[in-house]
Amino acid sequence: MLAVMKKSTNEEKFQVMVNTPMTKPYKLVSREFKQENTQVTIGDAVFGNGSLPVIAGPCAVESQSQVLSIARSVKDAGAKIFRGGAFKPRTSPYSFQGLGKQGLIFLANIREETGLPVVTEAMDVETFDLVEKYADAVQIGSRNMQNFSLLRRAGKSDRPVILKRGMAATLQEWLMAAEYIMEEGNTNVILCERGIRTFVRHSRNTLDLSVVPAVKKESHLPIIIDPSHAAGVRDQVISLAYASAALGADGMMIEVHNNPEEAMSDGAQSLYPEQFIEVMKKMNAIHAIVGK
Amino acid sequence: MLAVMKKSTNEEKFQVMVNTPMTKPYKLVSREFKQENTQVTIGDAVFGNGSLPVIAGPCAVESQSQVLSIARSVKDAGAKIFRGGAFKPRTSPYSFQGLGKQGLIFLANIREETGLPVVTEAMDVETFDLVEKYADAVQIGSRNMQNFSLLRRAGKSDRPVILKRGMAATLQEWLMAAEYIMEEGNTNVILCERGIRTFVRHSRNTLDLSVVPAVKKESHLPIIIDPSHAAGVRDQVISLAYASAALGADGMMIEVHNNPEEAMSDGAQSLYPEQFIEVMKKMNAIHAIVGK
Amino acid sequence: MLAVMKKSTNEEKFQVMVNTPMTKPYKLVSREFKQENTQVTIGDAVFGNGSLPVIAGPCAVESQSQVLSIARSVKDAGAKIFRGGAFKPRTSPYSFQGLGKQGLIFLANIREETGLPVVTEAMDVETFDLVEKYADAVQIGSRNMQNFSLLRRAGKSDRPVILKRGMAATLQEWLMAAEYIMEEGNTNVILCERGIRTFVRHSRNTLDLSVVPAVKKESHLPIIIDPSHAAGVRDQVISLAYASAALGADGMMIEVHNNPEEAMSDGAQSLYPEQFIEVMKKMNAIHAIVGK
Amino acid sequence: MLAVMKKSTNEEKFQVMVNTPMTKPYKLVSREFKQENTQVTIGDAVFGNGSLPVIAGPCAVESQSQVLSIARSVKDAGAKIFRGGAFKPRTSPYSFQGLGKQGLIFLANIREETGLPVVTEAMDVETFDLVEKYADAVQIGSRNMQNFSLLRRAGKSDRPVILKRGMAATLQEWLMAAEYIMEEGNTNVILCERGIRTFVRHSRNTLDLSVVPAVKKESHLPIIIDPSHAAGVRDQVISLAYASAALGADGMMIEVHNNPEEAMSDGAQSLYPEQFIEVMKKMNAIHAIVGK
Repeated sequence: MLAVMKKSTNEEKFQVMVNTPMTKPYKLVSREFKQENTQVTIGDAVFGNGSLPVIAGPCAVESQSQVLSIARSVKDAGAKIFRGGAFKPRTSPYSFQGLGKQGLIFLANIREETGLPVVTEAMDVETFDLVEKYADAVQIGSRNMQNFSLLRRAGKSDRPVILKRGMAATLQEWLMAAEYIMEEGNTNVILCERGIRTFVRHSRNTLDLSVVPAVKKESHLPIIIDPSHAAGVRDQVISLAYASAALGADGMMIEVHNNPEEAMSDGAQSLYPEQFIEVMKKMNAIHAIVGK
Repeated sequence: MLAVMKKSTNEEKFQVMVNTPMTKPYKLVSREFKQENTQVTIGDAVFGNGSLPVIAGPCAVESQSQVLSIARSVKDAGAKIFRGGAFKPRTSPYSFQGLGKQGLIFLANIREETGLPVVTEAMDVETFDLVEKYADAVQIGSRNMQNFSLLRRAGKSDRPVILKRGMAATLQEWLMAAEYIMEEGNTNVILCERGIRTFVRHSRNTLDLSVVPAVKKESHLPIIIDPSHAAGVRDQVISLAYASAALGADGMMIEVHNNPEEAMSDGAQSLYPEQFIEVMKKMNAIHAIVGK
Repeated sequence: MLAVMKKSTNEEKFQVMVNTPMTKPYKLVSREFKQENTQVTIGDAVFGNGSLPVIAGPCAVESQSQVLSIARSVKDAGAKIFRGGAFKPRTSPYSFQGLGKQGLIFLANIREETGLPVVTEAMDVETFDLVEKYADAVQIGSRNMQNFSLLRRAGKSDRPVILKRGMAATLQEWLMAAEYIMEEGNTNVILCERGIRTFVRHSRNTLDLSVVPAVKKESHLPIIIDPSHAAGVRDQVISLAYASAALGADGMMIEVHNNPEEAMSDGAQSLYPEQFIEVMKKMNAIHAIVGK
Repeated sequence: MLAVMKKSTNEEKFQVMVNTPMTKPYKLVSREFKQENTQVTIGDAVFGNGSLPVIAGPCAVESQSQVLSIARSVKDAGAKIFRGGAFKPRTSPYSFQGLGKQGLIFLANIREETGLPVVTEAMDVETFDLVEKYADAVQIGSRNMQNFSLLRRAGKSDRPVILKRGMAATLQEWLMAAEYIMEEGNTNVILCERGIRTFVRHSRNTLDLSVVPAVKKESHLPIIIDPSHAAGVRDQVISLAYASAALGADGMMIEVHNNPEEAMSDGAQSLYPEQFIEVMKKMNAIHAIVGK
């Protein structure tokens, strides 16, 4: 039925839907549909098998030397995947928008030099091909969680997709966004909680840790946590990283910068490399306690 | 300076930014930059000149006869522009996604038959050309408020753009999204408040009417209100329509359906044609009181 | 049954509840229980009969001459009831806490001098007797919406009670708070919407106008709107006052100060007397359109 | 200066305030005013010295045998303080309101039988004397966070006060509420985060863990976490308990019931005694990692 739908035109799809009794708003993402945990593999890292793989790196790729320095640090500290933004969605058109293709090339060089797989964000359908070509996994950002064209394009990719939760997305809307990707055939979806918008002003966003057990109940997909964007300030990031590790999440994404004061974006939330070493040690120790 | 930036690569743009002291996060949208109100014209309607033009029509284009019937009703009631979704962003991939190009053709026929200009949503860069070809004005939806590629594409269009506020967008983020459009050269931007996400459960969203005077203080752009999506239920829509008309907004967007019980989407919030006639009368009478 | 309950001890009350099937969480406040609108009379003003009585005055009573000056202004402009805080709930213990009993005496003098009934807030059970003695109606503030001891005390009063909505209260919680008052025997309850806490930063709170039709559907109690505390800034107050008048609310509460720059609290949101005259005229004209 | 203020009348206090330059909205609670951590002792438990004392027990005291059974369980599992509500603030006047004085007597018997100190909530000034007489520490609930009369009364008590954060309280408002208590002379204040109200629907409230490092930066007061009320469902409570222990909080408050299915309130969020044993073990192991 779903396969048929994918080939149909909008009009036909509508007719199919009208004639199909839907008992739940989502299907492929649901625990009901698939009971065992989905495991998504990127390089050596497996998300969803009870381990706690960590994705680390700077907010934005700024230069080859910058990313190489950080990549070596985070690899030594135990990170399994390198992250860095080449295309940056920014609130202001006048903020640094990322290095684009050049940033992707720098990331590919990181993989070659360090052996770490790299993940970076695709902001639109136009640049998806390019991102897909260079990156081992593709991130879809919070602002694009309901960019349905982008979700469908990601669904046609053979790369794992990290789908960040929208800032005001309910659990159901988030799972539905994942359903868009899966419905196109890509089952390698990792959900990423990164904080929601609330009335609170002492942190940039409010990390919603309850969503982790809630997702695990509703869905078989792995869920990771990004405490960096949630907190927005370094000391809160560290505390939330420990909290996240204790929660039974399937992985972490943490921003690290070799020179946060000079970072082109989000410096205030990036850990220093030496802080990251300490954070990794404690996160792993905590995970060992709560993991099965 | 801005013109130079548009031609520069990302790297160059970044260098320009680094070297440019920015005193405000936005520029082209700001009242400081342009003191007089911007007036945006679509057909006979002028947004921003103190009048209260009303955009009306169904949530989705369902058939030629449906839209024609509704268009005649709303025109008779005084609406200046017809609305109807051809491409529908839907939370679920299994919900009706709109009639696509066929819907656009139906809309173009409405213009021919009734003389009403038509506005419809463009969901992505891929279909923007098509929407632009058929519609008199292009809507960018809440979920796409920070789809920066789409904003830039809209900025290159010669059609007026109606930019809906994101469900969790601050005033500043919304104006920044408009700045993306204007920075590409399109100055015909109309802002549209449609409710924000709060803890409230008695309505779908919470209409933020304070944003109207706040926008008018910060920006020269016209702002209209869509009470239909904010409320989600018909009796609240009517109340909020009157409240909006009393607020000094620059226009309204209201959903009307000739058969709401059978609507393919958002039937519960669509007014019956006879209700719309009454609403138009009272809105105009209220507007006459508060307008200068 | 309810009468019996009021005399019972907690333990007995619990047993009664265990044995009583409750189909709805509230009873006395519900439209289901009482279909016709409740009308609450304070002086010449009737709340709930389709009119739009206005309560006006300063945030805090500061001196006899201050309140007398403002009272004469607002009476001339058409206000039916004078408001002014004698006991002020303040976030900081170091902010002006109100004149206390002396403020109540000043208010009583206002009634004598101008004939306007006066409403003022009771902050606790201890001072309720005093407030009740001097005031024609008693206000329970947002922070005390779930101060159940205070609600029960108000339920034993023969004064009408204006119950402000808590900043994060759902419709159901608010109606339940009113139920506490009614359950003690006082049926003269007026609900007052004054803005909820959201992520928004361009206004102090977000006025939730949808709650008016929602309350009217669920409950027979009158509901009024206080745009002053919701907005927090004068120009937004005026816009929201017009919007509120268009909404079919049963009354308004608006802050007016003869010298806002020198006000001891909330000066920025207080209207100048001449502004209030204009606001009253337009509110009444708008109300005439939407009222039956 | 503050001592003088406490003896002054409202009018005099106002004059003092007018003449006193306030550089910060709070003073006594601030880290600036007192740099070393405040340590609050209740029985054997010390809050603020780097340990993780746990307060456990049922939501409500239901009977002597119930509380005795639970108290023995939680003591064996390592809890340092017993909790149980005798006066229960309930949204509905028809919900179980607690056993009142009889509940306090049951709690006092717990202390005698088990040696555990007991903490219970005081809902109003009227019953504060009674609560103070029987309990080792007094809790002020979320709904009363800005019940200033109650805060002042607690400030005159010689019992430690556990001040829960209001559901929509900012960090500053919460610290100000603590300032009310401290300004009256009681310096034994413990802050308790219990979740804030957001748009989220998969949990009752959203636990705001970022507030822990934020409080520690601004204030010297100890802060504990109540994951039970935040989550509202048992499996989320367990996850959040581990997250909280990893965060560097100064203690925990967790609901445990010997028979949750039959609990008179909040059964769904209460842990079974055997779950609590496991939770205690893992929380202590986690705390050993993150504690200094």
